[in-house]
Amino acid sequence: MQRPITFLSDYGLDDDFVGVCHGVIARIAPAARVLDLTHGVPRHDVRSGALILRRALPYCPPGVHLAVVDPDVGGERLAVAVRTAENDRILVGPDNGLLSLAAARFGGAVEAVDIGLSRHRLEPASATFHGRDIFAPVAAALTAGAHLADAGEPMDPDELVTLEMPLARAEGDQLVAHAVRVDRFGNVMLDVEHEELAAFGLKLGQPMTVNGVRCIYATTFADVPEGELLVYEDAYRTLALAVNRASAAELLGLALDDEVRLGPAE
Amino acid sequence: MQRPITFLSDYGLDDDFVGVCHGVIARIAPAARVLDLTHGVPRHDVRSGALILRRALPYCPPGVHLAVVDPDVGGERLAVAVRTAENDRILVGPDNGLLSLAAARFGGAVEAVDIGLSRHRLEPASATFHGRDIFAPVAAALTAGAHLADAGEPMDPDELVTLEMPLARAEGDQLVAHAVRVDRFGNVMLDVEHEELAAFGLKLGQPMTVNGVRCIYATTFADVPEGELLVYEDAYRTLALAVNRASAAELLGLALDDEVRLGPAE
Amino acid sequence: MQRPITFLSDYGLDDDFVGVCHGVIARIAPAARVLDLTHGVPRHDVRSGALILRRALPYCPPGVHLAVVDPDVGGERLAVAVRTAENDRILVGPDNGLLSLAAARFGGAVEAVDIGLSRHRLEPASATFHGRDIFAPVAAALTAGAHLADAGEPMDPDELVTLEMPLARAEGDQLVAHAVRVDRFGNVMLDVEHEELAAFGLKLGQPMTVNGVRCIYATTFADVPEGELLVYEDAYRTLALAVNRASAAELLGLALDDEVRLGPAE
Repeated sequence: MQRPITFLSDYGLDDDFVGVCHGVIARIAPAARVLDLTHGVPRHDVRSGALILRRALPYCPPGVHLAVVDPDVGGERLAVAVRTAENDRILVGPDNGLLSLAAARFGGAVEAVDIGLSRHRLEPASATFHGRDIFAPVAAALTAGAHLADAGEPMDPDELVTLEMPLARAEGDQLVAHAVRVDRFGNVMLDVEHEELAAFGLKLGQPMTVNGVRCIYATTFADVPEGELLVYEDAYRTLALAVNRASAAELLGLALDDEVRLGPAE
Repeated sequence: MQRPITFLSDYGLDDDFVGVCHGVIARIAPAARVLDLTHGVPRHDVRSGALILRRALPYCPPGVHLAVVDPDVGGERLAVAVRTAENDRILVGPDNGLLSLAAARFGGAVEAVDIGLSRHRLEPASATFHGRDIFAPVAAALTAGAHLADAGEPMDPDELVTLEMPLARAEGDQLVAHAVRVDRFGNVMLDVEHEELAAFGLKLGQPMTVNGVRCIYATTFADVPEGELLVYEDAYRTLALAVNRASAAELLGLALDDEVRLGPAE
Repeated sequence: MQRPITFLSDYGLDDDFVGVCHGVIARIAPAARVLDLTHGVPRHDVRSGALILRRALPYCPPGVHLAVVDPDVGGERLAVAVRTAENDRILVGPDNGLLSLAAARFGGAVEAVDIGLSRHRLEPASATFHGRDIFAPVAAALTAGAHLADAGEPMDPDELVTLEMPLARAEGDQLVAHAVRVDRFGNVMLDVEHEELAAFGLKLGQPMTVNGVRCIYATTFADVPEGELLVYEDAYRTLALAVNRASAAELLGLALDDEVRLGPAE
């Protein structure tokens, strides 16, 4: 059985962008399985796409991982296919950092090719829809057995673009974290893990404050009454904010990258 | 060929929750077909999820039917897998009533296991994402040939949670029904069937009133002019309200569970 | 391997309409691949559905192409299955023009059957959900090997409904085009191609006006600063309006079918 293709993008499902990419893949690799990870990445939000990809891929079978969040399509950014050190996964997408967190998660990139002029791309390639004309057909060809080295021009993996991320920092008795992602339920993912919080003396089951709002460092939503805020270790082992049956982002007025001050209850 | 998995949830498609569950299934049962019934169940609306599941499954091949609408994830509700009397269908999800209407539709549950600590779950299981860590892997294992009895601790099917639903009632010459579901077109499904309406002397093709608004008991939307209200027997054989090319829920100001008074035209 | 089914509709993904059609197909043709082109066609917008179908199908493998945008379901419009002259594609859907642009793209319809009473439909067929009861089961049967001629009553392909479209026209030194489709990014597709614009002396890389707003006829979004308007040849070889990282429809206040006056910069 062929290795599957996973597909993540900011194309949304209101238009036929995703469907047409599926069509292109089916023409080239009729037997390929395609798993849609999500197409709801906020438009042009490369970092959210990169975070989601890093978190999701460990749960997916190794294969060809197509990802398209591409604000500079048709500009000077490269189009690339990248092999990771572990799991022999191949990431395909724009070289704007979108693939970098996932690559790092699997030991880093050990082989990379520039696929902008790949022999597998559709001709003539458009200037604005590389998902259809470059990324999908290259991913399909690789799944169907094409060699990575033949899919484009070899390049140095060290030259791939990586992402700059905000970093949590200490300020007195506060840990200043950031809202690195907000999901549709209004849960807010932070750039901090349990161990860092523990270092500030904040313990599971005990009260604390988040931007001045008193809450509990809890195990799950149901540990607090409806409508109340909690901090919890989320399903991906990082800390997050939630409100039982409501939106933490709304309650705290948080948007992406906003500072989130975690401190003692008093 | 393996039996397919169907998948219904309130996860939405904006995030990667659904995609990650697909990934988990593909790792465990690479050849399994997964049919997404819908992931647009309103958040935490167990009853709408249960109604949709009951209505949709008869149109789907017997298989493993994964359903996740789970407001109490991580709390005390059980996680279960249930075999139905007819069709040998297996329902997998939280034991909060979500599965109960579908189970009843197929003759009731004849075997049930508590899968909270199933050998098939991902370890360590998170407290907040049982779709990924418990329900999807158990569904995948069952599709791939695992035995239901081995998937968890046996439990008495009579102890499964069932749903309380509003019931239509007579009041004078009015039949007081309820809005049990509103679809994206604003069509409003009622808890009443054709026979009950007929018992009130309301006949197909004739005028009647709905919350005081005069309308026609019609066969299809096109039987009334654009913008006009109709009562009709919907595609699932229950009565519903619609407005030709507009929204009945909006016209009548109806929300879920609101009373809907059906009466004679005069 | 069976030929795939593609599926386009205005059903949206919030409800189970699409999922149930997948279920019906899986019962009849368990091995069939189904590619969802999009289910986000604006409700009842037959023309947008027809345009998307025409543009998407050339990128999809020849197969059975199911399409449902059906404001007159249950009314007098026919239900049809149509074979195209080129590629041996079969289009299945309501006879309201939805299939007509795609049929024309593949050399026109050479065989057509009225499937309203098809032997493959589900019985009893509802009056309001022909996607489930007529179109999906017929598409599945055709994919599984049924003959088109046996799927319904033969009819004259020349009697199929076709669409009237607005046509761009000259007015002085202006080319008056129309907004024929707006995608989720606010990009506006026009009913005009590069050659027509060139005939007005408007050249790639040069300034022009769109409804009085000065802009550039560019190759791609990145050719203009963020927030600025451009005209470009889109991924489907027709002209379109965009704003780099924002919405052209919003900037210009354009809705479907609105006139768009393209003229010289002065």
